[in-house]
Amino acid sequence: MSFIEVNSDSDFPIQNLPYGIFSTKDNTKPRIGVAIGTKILDLSVIKHLFDGAQMKDKQNVFEETTLNKFMSLGKSAWKETRQRLQELLFDSCKILKDNNDLRKQAFVEQKDANMHLPAQIGDYTDFYCSKEHATNVGTMFRGKENALMPNWLHLPVGYHGRASSVVVSGTDIRRPNGQTCPDETKPPTFGNCKLLDIELEMAFFIGTEGNHQGEPITMDKADEYIFGLVIMNDWSARDIQKWEYVPLGPFTAKNFGTTISPWIVTMDALQDALCTGPTQDPTPLSYLTQQEPSAIDIDLKVSLKPNQSSKEYTICQSNLKHMYWSLKQMLVHHTVTGCNLRAGDLIATGTISGPTPDSCGSMLELTWRGSKPLVLDENLTRKFLEDGDTVTMTGFYQGNGFKIGFGQCTGTIIPALPLPK
Amino acid sequence: MSFIEVNSDSDFPIQNLPYGIFSTKDNTKPRIGVAIGTKILDLSVIKHLFDGAQMKDKQNVFEETTLNKFMSLGKSAWKETRQRLQELLFDSCKILKDNNDLRKQAFVEQKDANMHLPAQIGDYTDFYCSKEHATNVGTMFRGKENALMPNWLHLPVGYHGRASSVVVSGTDIRRPNGQTCPDETKPPTFGNCKLLDIELEMAFFIGTEGNHQGEPITMDKADEYIFGLVIMNDWSARDIQKWEYVPLGPFTAKNFGTTISPWIVTMDALQDALCTGPTQDPTPLSYLTQQEPSAIDIDLKVSLKPNQSSKEYTICQSNLKHMYWSLKQMLVHHTVTGCNLRAGDLIATGTISGPTPDSCGSMLELTWRGSKPLVLDENLTRKFLEDGDTVTMTGFYQGNGFKIGFGQCTGTIIPALPLPK
Ligand SMILES: [Ca+2]
Ligand SMILES: [Ca+2]
Ligand SMILES: [Mg+2]
Ligand SMILES: [Mg+2]
Ligand code: NI
Repeated sequence: MSFIEVNSDSDFPIQNLPYGIFSTKDNTKPRIGVAIGTKILDLSVIKHLFDGAQMKDKQNVFEETTLNKFMSLGKSAWKETRQRLQELLFDSCKILKDNNDLRKQAFVEQKDANMHLPAQIGDYTDFYCSKEHATNVGTMFRGKENALMPNWLHLPVGYHGRASSVVVSGTDIRRPNGQTCPDETKPPTFGNCKLLDIELEMAFFIGTEGNHQGEPITMDKADEYIFGLVIMNDWSARDIQKWEYVPLGPFTAKNFGTTISPWIVTMDALQDALCTGPTQDPTPLSYLTQQEPSAIDIDLKVSLKPNQSSKEYTICQSNLKHMYWSLKQMLVHHTVTGCNLRAGDLIATGTISGPTPDSCGSMLELTWRGSKPLVLDENLTRKFLEDGDTVTMTGFYQGNGFKIGFGQCTGTIIPALPLPK
Repeated sequence: MSFIEVNSDSDFPIQNLPYGIFSTKDNTKPRIGVAIGTKILDLSVIKHLFDGAQMKDKQNVFEETTLNKFMSLGKSAWKETRQRLQELLFDSCKILKDNNDLRKQAFVEQKDANMHLPAQIGDYTDFYCSKEHATNVGTMFRGKENALMPNWLHLPVGYHGRASSVVVSGTDIRRPNGQTCPDETKPPTFGNCKLLDIELEMAFFIGTEGNHQGEPITMDKADEYIFGLVIMNDWSARDIQKWEYVPLGPFTAKNFGTTISPWIVTMDALQDALCTGPTQDPTPLSYLTQQEPSAIDIDLKVSLKPNQSSKEYTICQSNLKHMYWSLKQMLVHHTVTGCNLRAGDLIATGTISGPTPDSCGSMLELTWRGSKPLVLDENLTRKFLEDGDTVTMTGFYQGNGFKIGFGQCTGTIIPALPLPK
């Protein structure tokens, strides 16, 4: 299909075309690229080729060091750009294919590129939208009868996260020190986090100029604001979280690092992945009612490479479609009181746990609070993360003969700083 | 003292010199100004006069449309700039005083200026650091015995807020619509917020380049990161908050608008205001221990102008010094697990309530959940805010013969949008 060779199990066929920000040794300026097979197409080099009605006067967005301006242009611009990219990459199109100079300049091997955060993230929000996850965690902390809070089935529960600490895949994560209180009959102590965990999530970037403060986004317009998705690992310090989170939610237990995959897969690439989500009972209030299928079928996998091993072990397999609340419902609820979203804002789903024990998106759940360690191999178990462990999350939609993949969301735990004397 | 006349009860004598961002009808570009008396000194016009060791190569920061770059320069640059400003404004200095052309260009009347947000706020964090406020709210929601959560006396409780919705004083605030559940034996409903409230807070802006992710700021360095303070009104929809806040904290009840006063009063201007805060018992863990006086003596007042009246009524008088946890403790705790702060980040104290009934910083507390309406005048009472009500917060440190004031943090409630059919 494309004149660029794409392996049949590649994450990045011509049907995908995700956007990211990359730089190279020779050119350290971060710039906008599109993944195709094992290569990146550098849009700063071919910006003059975007000469359609929407983009011809806006080619300069492809010279930016983040995707924010492109994101802010809105759906028609995104569609035109995608169409033009598919045209240019198509086997039958000579513009790039037969221009050796341009082609040489425009393509970079992914292995030679450094990936950066795709956008300047104004605000990052984390939701809590998997019923299985909320039930599991609620059962552990409050018992089976009080597992789901009374509001949970009526609104997508969410909270604000820390935008500054979102990092791109490949960034090491330092084990935090912090305050915990393992025995609440005694005073709290300061020390290394002992229950360092992952959270398998997906997150979407906001596009368009955003809404005006005081003017909620309604369900019929929600689509227009969703630019695309990434995979997210919301690293969590469970012992710190347990002590600090009442009554205002997690804070230092989550704000030391959140990793996202570098390529934003657009909603346009995921149209065939839309499917019907779980039945919502009770029926949500009308501002949250959606007509079209709004769940997304994305297979997700978490693997762990323990420090002692060169092998990767799959510890979780899940799917975004299990999520009780849809991305659109999160977005609409987020703005219901008038909160203004801006292009480049990041909104995460919360931990994605499925219905089976091996589909839980956190080690907290997979090991049931450490009581059932994961057996990775002979003599190799894990309750929570150890220093040197690497966690990698991947995901894809299986199309008809091709994959719409997300690349990797990976990070390695480095040891905590020494404790002050 | 200054050749600019300053009224003896002005918020902005030469001892203050707070920074803000303003524009005028004739020049709509936002630029950096310093308040002096009833005037603003436009730093973009006199940037060439900053020729000291720290600033001579960095004068371009005064051409920015926000204070972020100046904030990022750090303490020595701030001190040199302040010193130079005091020199230039001093009666005996002819540089500005006797250069009629420059003087005419450099000064603008505050009444002719539009104020803007002083910085691009990367992240906004809200703490919960008044023991009186936490006790009052805890008593109302959980009873006297469980008022303070077990962690409260051991760490400054905080949570991430919504940076995009922070607005500058004078911006109208639309009454939100949202989901509430007045009777939890019945399903929730959608409608206008009925319990719209204020929160009297102060907030500080982060300066310096910030810390590296994974590297906490220790108490001995905390000072270097605090650029200055503003007054904040953290508007709150109490009925929405009550239903949504478990278990992850307030979300849509707070993210529709947070107002700050436009002038950032620097820590250098507030050195004499430092005082000893409340005794902390139990003694905090060593990473939170502070030696020097770290409370700040700032008198605060909240007044309400009801829609039916042209009169302003004082509804609360409090003082920042009542705060249990200090700004430095908030900052250190915020970064303890490695969270990275950036110049321009905003960190708020939480509602400042004092020990007396009239020093409570929210209507929730002042009216004890609406059960004891505020009597403003004959036939004029308030439980919570009505449409058209204007709330104004002011504050100052009383120096020896001068005030270090903050100007106004004001906002008017406009009616909710019509409910969808
Ligand atoms: Ca999470
Ligand atoms: Ca608050
Ligand atoms: Mg995180
Ligand atoms: Mg607010
Ligand atoms: Ni932010």
